Amino acid sequence: MASVSAALRARVRRPSMLSKIATAEDLVPMFKNGMDIGWSGFTGVGYPKKIPVALADHVERNNLQGKLKFNLFVGASTGAETEDRWAALDMIDRRYPHQVGRNIAKGINAGRIRFADKHLSMFAQDLVYGYYTKDKPKNKLDIVVVEATAITEEGGIIPGASVGATPELIQMADKVIIEVNTAIPSFEGLHDITMSTLPPRRKPYLVMAVEDRIGTNHVPIDPEKVVAIVESNRPDNTGGNDPEDETSRAIASHLLEFFNHEIRHGRLPTSLLPLQSGIGNIANAVIGGLADGPFNNVTVWTEVIQDTFLRFFDKGNLKFATATSVRFSPEGFEKFYKNWDRYYDKLLLRSQQVSNSPEIIRRLGVIAMNTPVEVDIYGHGNSTCVMGSRMLNGLGGSADFLRNAKLSIMHTPSVRPTKKDPTGITTIVPMCTHVDQTEHDLDVIVTEQGLADLRGLSPRERAKLIIEQCAHPDYKDVLMDYFKQATKECFAKGAGHEPHMLRNVFRMHLGLEKEGTMKGHGWE
Amino acid sequence: MASVSAALRARVRRPSMLSKIATAEDLVPMFKNGMDIGWSGFTGVGYPKKIPVALADHVERNNLQGKLKFNLFVGASTGAETEDRWAALDMIDRRYPHQVGRNIAKGINAGRIRFADKHLSMFAQDLVYGYYTKDKPKNKLDIVVVEATAITEEGGIIPGASVGATPELIQMADKVIIEVNTAIPSFEGLHDITMSTLPPRRKPYLVMAVEDRIGTNHVPIDPEKVVAIVESNRPDNTGGNDPEDETSRAIASHLLEFFNHEIRHGRLPTSLLPLQSGIGNIANAVIGGLADGPFNNVTVWTEVIQDTFLRFFDKGNLKFATATSVRFSPEGFEKFYKNWDRYYDKLLLRSQQVSNSPEIIRRLGVIAMNTPVEVDIYGHGNSTCVMGSRMLNGLGGSADFLRNAKLSIMHTPSVRPTKKDPTGITTIVPMCTHVDQTEHDLDVIVTEQGLADLRGLSPRERAKLIIEQCAHPDYKDVLMDYFKQATKECFAKGAGHEPHMLRNVFRMHLGLEKEGTMKGHGWE
Repeated sequence: MASVSAALRARVRRPSMLSKIATAEDLVPMFKNGMDIGWSGFTGVGYPKKIPVALADHVERNNLQGKLKFNLFVGASTGAETEDRWAALDMIDRRYPHQVGRNIAKGINAGRIRFADKHLSMFAQDLVYGYYTKDKPKNKLDIVVVEATAITEEGGIIPGASVGATPELIQMADKVIIEVNTAIPSFEGLHDITMSTLPPRRKPYLVMAVEDRIGTNHVPIDPEKVVAIVESNRPDNTGGNDPEDETSRAIASHLLEFFNHEIRHGRLPTSLLPLQSGIGNIANAVIGGLADGPFNNVTVWTEVIQDTFLRFFDKGNLKFATATSVRFSPEGFEKFYKNWDRYYDKLLLRSQQVSNSPEIIRRLGVIAMNTPVEVDIYGHGNSTCVMGSRMLNGLGGSADFLRNAKLSIMHTPSVRPTKKDPTGITTIVPMCTHVDQTEHDLDVIVTEQGLADLRGLSPRERAKLIIEQCAHPDYKDVLMDYFKQATKECFAKGAGHEPHMLRNVFRMHLGLEKEGTMKGHGWE
Repeated sequence: MASVSAALRARVRRPSMLSKIATAEDLVPMFKNGMDIGWSGFTGVGYPKKIPVALADHVERNNLQGKLKFNLFVGASTGAETEDRWAALDMIDRRYPHQVGRNIAKGINAGRIRFADKHLSMFAQDLVYGYYTKDKPKNKLDIVVVEATAITEEGGIIPGASVGATPELIQMADKVIIEVNTAIPSFEGLHDITMSTLPPRRKPYLVMAVEDRIGTNHVPIDPEKVVAIVESNRPDNTGGNDPEDETSRAIASHLLEFFNHEIRHGRLPTSLLPLQSGIGNIANAVIGGLADGPFNNVTVWTEVIQDTFLRFFDKGNLKFATATSVRFSPEGFEKFYKNWDRYYDKLLLRSQQVSNSPEIIRRLGVIAMNTPVEVDIYGHGNSTCVMGSRMLNGLGGSADFLRNAKLSIMHTPSVRPTKKDPTGITTIVPMCTHVDQTEHDLDVIVTEQGLADLRGLSPRERAKLIIEQCAHPDYKDVLMDYFKQATKECFAKGAGHEPHMLRNVFRMHLGLEKEGTMKGHGWE
């Protein structure tokens, strides 16, 4: 049995838990091939670090690659030293509902890992419905490992920088192991936790404003489920932020102009409406642009809070932000911990079932902004599969937000480079090779070229506007030719609501595969 | 000015309204080319009959085809003598968000009518946001014509057999004309009406069970907006029901078996969960099958209630049903009116924003069932556009329900006939030519061949199961060959999460266009 450090004793306020202290290595034998394993964590923060690493070491040391495999359930992605290393060691059979990492993507696309992405709000719900564990007694997960920054007198878990699906994973766990992280401060007071119930007769989420609290500050847990407590001293393994560039700044500037336009026409209040913003350099540029004004008393209802939000707070224009995770860079976390009192009462972390809840997103009238792989001329979006087949990271919460927001916005550079051609890929295509967001979900498409406001437009009007406003000059003509020829052919057949030429629809994609650029592949 | 009949006087309880009586013909000059016009109505019931017909007569008599055109906003479809006749007379410029009729579909697919389909819950909301009327002062619609079966002392409107988007249309109307229908009974007491508010600080819909009431029994209206009252004596122009057949009964039987299986495994209560069921012969067979048991105390949370629900009530197994419209056949309405007391307290009509609300659908854990044009081997669904281009009726509420239900089910015959070949079209295809429901939204696909339970499966597992369980024997091999060849090619490229061959993906569709059957078109 491991000894109890003073740091750990200060964090674990329920004495009976201290009798369950163990080292990660002690617990390795509990994990059997084929088990359903849950971890806390979301966007690379708040995940357990000790047990996953100990198991990976065990597999590596004993050459158990491919022989000790698990079905891995985490709210979203975790740090590379855990899930990506597991993937490299062939330790993952199934994985839900999102992931990040070179090796895990490789395993998924090579067919070694059975991955299914899912709306992040729904993943947590489906877990409680037993949809992922239909073959297990009471649909339970075998072992769930969660990170805590403290344990309360009642045995409640105080998570760290994310809540994610931790409440539901614990609800559905047969056994729970808690990693208490003493390397980062206790996040006590920063969470609002609700547990899942089954229909019928469920209650509404009584959230009417971003700052509303409807739950407890800890995750309640049946203490008899807890089989071990492990001390962890490794911080969240986050990286830096994608820097803004000319393209992302141009996109941000089109968006700010659009917001101003909506305010002038009385369709948005001057404080805007609660913002959702994805991850990446465009999101950073947009939040960066907003930080500098002119909007104030802005609020945020989103999935992940990143470094730029700290600047937004510091400028005095951001009133309150809530999400299911704060994923700062190491420097961001340092700033956050050092100025805890400045941010503490302006931030709130909820479970992903609440942060991504269609109910609340729709009620609050969220402004949602996300980056796709590609969008098509009629306003569908591909968020997941390159060339229709190769999985990147998964759907995430993009469709939770874009389906339900008051303003649903996709922002993307109009082109991406290939090895051969700096503008070899157009992100505006005739038809998306995979559809995650439908034409019925998107209101606005914006690239560095311009902004297309699609609200109220028929598909043929949308196509013209998207090509004119958003496509890169290198691709404007070829796309407009596609649209015109498709329209002519489809009208002749009495089938021209949303004109397509199915024989041509992926010619640019096929050309890219053959020649390394989407240019020069016209319509036959 | 028109005279006031005794029947009308009995229905209009607010005296000042009686001074506004007019004939439809009196009002024709109010309607100017290019106006934004709203009608009540949903699935061919509760729509205004007099004004639309008077306007059509006026256009026909004066050869104004194409010269008197309107933008037409209705919750969903109306009777053929109104919107479809308007389409035949080229009186429709824009149309939102759903439609039914040979001429209107023809106009849309020929490019004469600018149609945009939209989630029915969102249409009503976007109307209030001003998204369809961005160029109008205060984003108002010019004239809204609604059918009432009575007007209360306060001037409130008692709708007929549907609520649809009437509350929002009235909210956004500059002028309102009320057609009081004295040919059908007053539906007073059968509605629960809520008006829309703008974010932020909106309130939850406090519906925790299908029978919960949260609004008023009438649509409140500013009486000064009402410019005229017209007496109407035409019943809703509904047709019969699609008869069940061997295929639809086989599908129903697979589904009932599945429900029993879920109950046995503790994932559904014995009264099931609130049901949503679409329109058509499969829906009728499913509801018909359920009427005969073994489930009792069943409840329904849906969009449209049809004749089979009367039998479900009569058998004693249906406890309560709520929707935004009751669309019975003429015989069904006769039975309903004759036995009013038997059904009255078991039925409730709400606005489409509430009946289709993601918030409530998710909270109640609805079981949603809809019929697609086609589904693909990975579990995407096409609900709208044949061959990716030709619009049928629109999305309707399919995605409101399928995205948010506890169980999201698409049911379809595995094949459809062409002129040349009775099994010339497979509804299970390599890739949908238009995606309205994504792979992240569907749990179960069922055809007369069998049922595929997709929950928790990765895309490649889904493909195998859908082909094995659901595809017609004539297409099983060719689809499995597609899947195997695509998998081999994509694994070789390290891109095999959801294997596709983009060059082949629509070959069966192209073959159908050329040869009148999807058979005999293999993979190159």
